[in-house]
Amino acid sequence: MVLDLLAPFAAQLQKPTLAFLFGGMALAALGSRLEIPEPVYRFIVVLLMLKIGLGAGISLREANPAEIALPALIAVVLGIAIVLLGRVTLARAPGIAPADGMATAGLFGAVSASTLAAAMVMLEADDMTYEAWVPALYPFMDIPALLTAIVLAQMARGGTVRIGAILADSARGAAVSALGLGLVLGIVARPDAVHAEFYEPLFRGLLTILMLVMGMEAWSRLAELRHSAHAHAAYALTAPLVHGALGFGLGYGAHLATGFSAGGVVLLAVMAASSSDISGPPTLRAAIPQANPAAYLGASTSLGTPMALLTIPLWMALAQVVM
Amino acid sequence: MVLDLLAPFAAQLQKPTLAFLFGGMALAALGSRLEIPEPVYRFIVVLLMLKIGLGAGISLREANPAEIALPALIAVVLGIAIVLLGRVTLARAPGIAPADGMATAGLFGAVSASTLAAAMVMLEADDMTYEAWVPALYPFMDIPALLTAIVLAQMARGGTVRIGAILADSARGAAVSALGLGLVLGIVARPDAVHAEFYEPLFRGLLTILMLVMGMEAWSRLAELRHSAHAHAAYALTAPLVHGALGFGLGYGAHLATGFSAGGVVLLAVMAASSSDISGPPTLRAAIPQANPAAYLGASTSLGTPMALLTIPLWMALAQVVM
Amino acid sequence: MVLDLLAPFAAQLQKPTLAFLFGGMALAALGSRLEIPEPVYRFIVVLLMLKIGLGAGISLREANPAEIALPALIAVVLGIAIVLLGRVTLARAPGIAPADGMATAGLFGAVSASTLAAAMVMLEADDMTYEAWVPALYPFMDIPALLTAIVLAQMARGGTVRIGAILADSARGAAVSALGLGLVLGIVARPDAVHAEFYEPLFRGLLTILMLVMGMEAWSRLAELRHSAHAHAAYALTAPLVHGALGFGLGYGAHLATGFSAGGVVLLAVMAASSSDISGPPTLRAAIPQANPAAYLGASTSLGTPMALLTIPLWMALAQVVM
Repeated sequence: MVLDLLAPFAAQLQKPTLAFLFGGMALAALGSRLEIPEPVYRFIVVLLMLKIGLGAGISLREANPAEIALPALIAVVLGIAIVLLGRVTLARAPGIAPADGMATAGLFGAVSASTLAAAMVMLEADDMTYEAWVPALYPFMDIPALLTAIVLAQMARGGTVRIGAILADSARGAAVSALGLGLVLGIVARPDAVHAEFYEPLFRGLLTILMLVMGMEAWSRLAELRHSAHAHAAYALTAPLVHGALGFGLGYGAHLATGFSAGGVVLLAVMAASSSDISGPPTLRAAIPQANPAAYLGASTSLGTPMALLTIPLWMALAQVVM
Repeated sequence: MVLDLLAPFAAQLQKPTLAFLFGGMALAALGSRLEIPEPVYRFIVVLLMLKIGLGAGISLREANPAEIALPALIAVVLGIAIVLLGRVTLARAPGIAPADGMATAGLFGAVSASTLAAAMVMLEADDMTYEAWVPALYPFMDIPALLTAIVLAQMARGGTVRIGAILADSARGAAVSALGLGLVLGIVARPDAVHAEFYEPLFRGLLTILMLVMGMEAWSRLAELRHSAHAHAAYALTAPLVHGALGFGLGYGAHLATGFSAGGVVLLAVMAASSSDISGPPTLRAAIPQANPAAYLGASTSLGTPMALLTIPLWMALAQVVM
Repeated sequence: MVLDLLAPFAAQLQKPTLAFLFGGMALAALGSRLEIPEPVYRFIVVLLMLKIGLGAGISLREANPAEIALPALIAVVLGIAIVLLGRVTLARAPGIAPADGMATAGLFGAVSASTLAAAMVMLEADDMTYEAWVPALYPFMDIPALLTAIVLAQMARGGTVRIGAILADSARGAAVSALGLGLVLGIVARPDAVHAEFYEPLFRGLLTILMLVMGMEAWSRLAELRHSAHAHAAYALTAPLVHGALGFGLGYGAHLATGFSAGGVVLLAVMAASSSDISGPPTLRAAIPQANPAAYLGASTSLGTPMALLTIPLWMALAQVVM
């Protein structure tokens, strides 16, 4: 069974998505002056989130609300559980300031749009189907995770905690906004043609550019990580595996209980394994100002995201073995 | 007949173009941090104008110059008439500085590239055909309107009026330049393949992004409008209807006289109803420095453009009823 | 035979690639405010180089290394020979500072990604085939040319020359990095689907935008050229023809010796005729700080690049006549 898990893993490494990630790392390591301009990068993320939202929205029109309830609940539970887990592990580790630990746990509980998109493309390339509304579970895990981390950090500091304000701020992030807009338009505005002819064809191509950026970012942030405590690095390397396994386990439960698809279980595991790269950081910076961004961003961008991406073939192989 | 007008109007509200406009407004109203980076936005506008120009240029190769003459003349007349109308209404309204009134009238006489693009996509989605050169009438309405407003404002101030210089400056704006370049290349350079394989497929998709930006801009400029006179708001809400009806009426005359298409009449009405968002403002700022940009931009962006977009289904329904 | 050469030349002038170049020049000459935002322009260049690399890498998987050896050697020889030729002509011309002359010769020995892309599109439009790995010869000519110019300039100044550092710096430029990354991924990562569905369709369309930018840049840099010595202008106008003929001659030798394709000979001539616009200038600025960027950039951008683009139909016609 170990071989069954390793073979598809090795195969994925030769496919474009992960190859562009490693390519970006290699370019940064070699000191290349190649860069994807920041405004273009931000636009690509908006397009991907709009696309994920539109696709999910279109499929929600015909979906049975009952079948969404359990996976959505699991997403919320995972978002909160991951942060609570971080509180009793990372935030208590030696050399870690509690606020830094909580912010890092919040980022790892939140979801990375690019990692989710990578998983969607990899599932489609391997013909593993999933309910098209699964990617729309993104905010169900992302917002509770950020909320939990911020509430715990603010409670520790002893100030007044205004849950409504934190919730609203999380939902206003660029990625959640774009996904939410796509979702609503997908349900009410019949964007099927423009989705199929514009957003869908661009999706796979633009993802290669995103992977490149993530690889370059990961490498160049490694230096920052060196200045922070070892526990951060240890957490960033193991958390994607632990969180993903948690997500896979709960998703597998939904598979047994309600026939949730194998691809859906993989996406749930990937969302749990991933850590937020776009929307989460500004929200955390505003709400937990006492935490050091270099610590949580370094851990998440340089190690957490690449690790989460590398676990995608693992969940896919696991799904094929057990389902 | 009122029902005949309302039913397609309601139907259009559920289609992507207007839905993205309202989506943008909703995001801005909810305080979303989503934004389309400025350089990307400006590039999209250039692409759309190049596409409109190329398409019109390709069709002009086989067009009969005689059939273009009347609609082109109507476009010029509309551009001038709208500004003159603004002079005797808005510019004389209580609480309105004459220069502000003239600049606003100039913007409302000029044409919005994005609104025109939206009308083209909506006509094509409903299979209403138009002569492919009609969008190239854009500068025939846009430049005379800006010219008239600037000349009137400069005459009121008593300085020397240099019509040639104003004309040249209007034609150098980004939108008119891109459309003019596309037009010339479409006629002489056989870009049919690259138009069909690159510009055309991107057109509909990028329009959704533009609509999103216009919705967000409209909402965030509403605050500015609050500080200016009520007459500005009243003008911005009614002018698109009045100007569009004027355009529709003259276009309908061309339909009766020379068989100008129903889709062409709609596009003429939309150009008349729309107000300039890209090219006009910098031209006016340079030529009528005594006018307050917050006044004319606020009126045009926050109310004029959304109103003009909302009237598109009206002209389409009217065309289907009377032609 | 002169007519045989002129007819396809005239025909190419009516095709989109060169027409967009002239269109850009015309817009700049008329003072248009149209501009392609800098971040978008840089992103387009990265996409084109990634595409060239991916395409070449995919084809290298099945290529016979032996057939690549001779053209690659010719590319290296051309890169060095062009710079040496510039040393004994331009760098000794009256009124030319030797460092300016060497930097200019280095730029003209290096390769323009956009000019190469234009030649690829023009060959494909005329159904002239070439070995798909030929564009990957880019760095084989580009790096030796920059290296030779920098070494000669540093030797003339009498400092220590560190060839390894110069070589590494040239390879780190954005264009060479993107091409190298594409090349490696094309060989190892099976990106065939994303290449065919995303990179390839965008290639021709984005090239029209690049041509537009190059035309506008060429015109606006002409003014700079006026301040520098006449020898610069004379060199910039004749070098593309001389270098291209050199490249064509050596490429034709490879055609006779090993059956190198006619399209491949044309691409080799175009690379030799072209001068670097993206990667070369920053490398030269850092390594030959005593040279005046206005001199070498003015010569290359305003005259060298348009001339090189205009010679493409010449090499195509020549290839059709002699092969």
